[in-house]
Amino acid sequence: MKGYFLALEGPDGSGKSTIAKLLKEKLEEDYKRPTVLTREPGGTKIGEEIRSILLSTDNMEMANRTEALLYAASRAQHVEEKILPLVKENNIVISDRYLVSSLAYQGFSRGLGLKEVMDINLFAINGFYPDRIIFFDLDSNLGLKRKFAQKEGDRLEIAGEDFHKQVYLGYKEAIKKYPAKVKIIDASASIDQVLKSCLEIIKEDLNL
Amino acid sequence: MKGYFLALEGPDGSGKSTIAKLLKEKLEEDYKRPTVLTREPGGTKIGEEIRSILLSTDNMEMANRTEALLYAASRAQHVEEKILPLVKENNIVISDRYLVSSLAYQGFSRGLGLKEVMDINLFAINGFYPDRIIFFDLDSNLGLKRKFAQKEGDRLEIAGEDFHKQVYLGYKEAIKKYPAKVKIIDASASIDQVLKSCLEIIKEDLNL
Repeated sequence: MKGYFLALEGPDGSGKSTIAKLLKEKLEEDYKRPTVLTREPGGTKIGEEIRSILLSTDNMEMANRTEALLYAASRAQHVEEKILPLVKENNIVISDRYLVSSLAYQGFSRGLGLKEVMDINLFAINGFYPDRIIFFDLDSNLGLKRKFAQKEGDRLEIAGEDFHKQVYLGYKEAIKKYPAKVKIIDASASIDQVLKSCLEIIKEDLNL
Repeated sequence: MKGYFLALEGPDGSGKSTIAKLLKEKLEEDYKRPTVLTREPGGTKIGEEIRSILLSTDNMEMANRTEALLYAASRAQHVEEKILPLVKENNIVISDRYLVSSLAYQGFSRGLGLKEVMDINLFAINGFYPDRIIFFDLDSNLGLKRKFAQKEGDRLEIAGEDFHKQVYLGYKEAIKKYPAKVKIIDASASIDQVLKSCLEIIKEDLNL
């Protein structure tokens, strides 16, 4: 038995949080593997403080580079304080977003460059790349429709349809440029089917 | 008449804030040059929010990489929202700390590497290097003695004598590795003398 770090990546409304919860139930009940869910930005006390700066609708004047560096700062804390110790203690850790989201949002959609944003993130994670990245592939319109059925938007969610179309393209570019550890699933399928696809990937990785 | 961006760098208690105020008075009264003082971390609303995370004594668990990225994030906002527009409008802008401080604290003293920290800062400032950097050279013991005569310490100031000795060495290494635009003044001299040295540098740069 060994630790395992899984990042779920994909647009808003693609079902990452729902699937993360169901994966935890399955992995703990059926396979007796202790599983911890976490999310970005956030996941630690300092990360939550950074998250509140990032997502506040009072901070519309935020520079793109500031945004990219704050995500990276939150990620650095997340890795060192939470993910790395949990994985070392042989837990499965599932993070709702990790570095591919930064490549898509800040690198591609904000126009800062995939390589530039990857570089500050490699500094942030200090070599701690996920064991597996699952990309939830979902057309941005469908994602937004699902999302706004649930609640009001934060600073990034309300940024408009074109922005989210760009983010979706950004995800596609990011996983093309950095395909290591990435598996793609069709997130327009039913919850049961998406859960099944994710579980198959994890079981193969862990020989469950 | 053109804009001018001056960074004052050096250890705690080396007199940067005091001299900045006196420089502003002199430049405005004697040379009719509008001058804006600012400081890091901070200088903008978002920067002040980042500053409060950085300096809070509740955040002792902060990872070194998080610290470095938060300083860079604050700097990115500072440049884009405040310093760059002011310089474009032909103001003199004097910042109490800028990127050399990050090299000394996070790059050298925290052991993250001068080049690694310079790289994330070059991303942050997007090419906006100071027109002049003045390094206030002062032995770290004398600096701390001056500082604690004034007020209680924040999270970084209370980090201990050895830490501050390391920071001082860090400044020396940083300006050796990146000497561009740097002038060094003896900050153990009298306030009048330090002010005079700084003014001479500025007057020469601006042909005043």
